[in-house]
Amino acid sequence: MPESPQTPPPAARRAKPGLVILHTGDGKGKTTAALGLALRAVGHGFKVCMVQFIKGRWTCGEHKAAAELLEGRLEIHPMGDGFTWDTRDREADRARVREGWDLALEKAASGDYKMLILDELLYVLSYDYLPVDEVLRFLADKPADLHVVLTGRNPPPEVVEAADLVTEMVAVKHPYQAGIKAQKGIEF
Amino acid sequence: MPESPQTPPPAARRAKPGLVILHTGDGKGKTTAALGLALRAVGHGFKVCMVQFIKGRWTCGEHKAAAELLEGRLEIHPMGDGFTWDTRDREADRARVREGWDLALEKAASGDYKMLILDELLYVLSYDYLPVDEVLRFLADKPADLHVVLTGRNPPPEVVEAADLVTEMVAVKHPYQAGIKAQKGIEF
Repeated sequence: MPESPQTPPPAARRAKPGLVILHTGDGKGKTTAALGLALRAVGHGFKVCMVQFIKGRWTCGEHKAAAELLEGRLEIHPMGDGFTWDTRDREADRARVREGWDLALEKAASGDYKMLILDELLYVLSYDYLPVDEVLRFLADKPADLHVVLTGRNPPPEVVEAADLVTEMVAVKHPYQAGIKAQKGIEF
Repeated sequence: MPESPQTPPPAARRAKPGLVILHTGDGKGKTTAALGLALRAVGHGFKVCMVQFIKGRWTCGEHKAAAELLEGRLEIHPMGDGFTWDTRDREADRARVREGWDLALEKAASGDYKMLILDELLYVLSYDYLPVDEVLRFLADKPADLHVVLTGRNPPPEVVEAADLVTEMVAVKHPYQAGIKAQKGIEF
C-alpha cells in the first residue's frame, strides 16, 4: 500500500479534521482496536456508533458491554445475520450490505456521533458488494468532525489513499495454530 | 520474530489456557486493541486489570471510561508519572517500574481478574528496566485461566517465544505526517 508523498493526506485539507482510520491486515486486532477507540471516545463523553457488516446477532462481549454498560454511548448494529455464506446468493448479500450502508449514512448525517465504525466494510468491498465510489464519496463529504473507522482485510487502494491513518495488523503467531479454540472475551 | 515449528506454543501445554497475548510493532493500536479486549471481557462479566508502565496520571479517555462507566469491572493503574525521561535517572525509573511490576504480580495472584494488561511493559523491557527472566517466570507460572496482554515495541525474542498470540501493528500511514496533532478520543 504505497503512499504518494506528493499528495497531502485528506485530513490536511479539512478544517476540523475528523480522521479516516483504517485497520487492515490478516492479524487479529482490527475490530478490537476499533472497540478500544470507541471506549476512549465514550470516556471523553462522545457518542460512538458501530455498524457491523459481517457479524450477526450472536452475542459478543462488545454487544453485551454496549447494551448493558455503555447504553446510550456506544451503539452497535450487527447487520450481517442475513448473509448467505452457504447458498452464495450474491443479490441477497448485496441487499444486506446496502441495508447496513444506508444505516451508516443515516447515522453519519444525524450529527449525533463523534465516531462511526464501519466494521468489516473493507472485506465487503473486496467482495464487490458495494461500489467503492460510494464509499469514497462518503469519506470526502462526511461531516468534518466525524471520525470514521473502517476495518477489514484487502482494502481497495483508493480507500487507503483516502485515509489519514492506516494500521496493518500482521499475524505473527496465532493460537489456532496450536489447536486452541476461540474463547469468550478474546475472540468474541 | 521467527517462530520455531518444533516448539508447541505455551498454551498448548496448559489445561485451561489463559492466553499470553502480545501487541507490538511501530504502528498505532497496541494499547487500543488491549482496551478493546478489555471491553469485550467486561461485557462477558469478567474483571480486567490494566497496569500502565509508561503513562502517567494525565486523563485519557480510557481512564475516564474505566472510572466513570466501568467501575469495578475495568481497573487502570497508570504507574508511569514518576518517569525521569528528561533527567534520565535510570535508578529512579527502575524503581518506578518495579513498583508497577509488584502491583501486577499482586493483581495476578489475587485471582480476581480474568485478564491482566501490562501496557508498555515490552518497551520497558527493551530499556532493561526489569529483568526479562522475571517476566518469563511470571508467564510460565501465572494462574492457568488468566489472560495476560503485553504491549509495546521491541519485545525480547524470549517473550515472543513465550506468547500464544502475537500481532504486529504496522504503521502504513500516520496523520502526524500531515501535521495533524494528537486528538482527544483517538490518541488519548
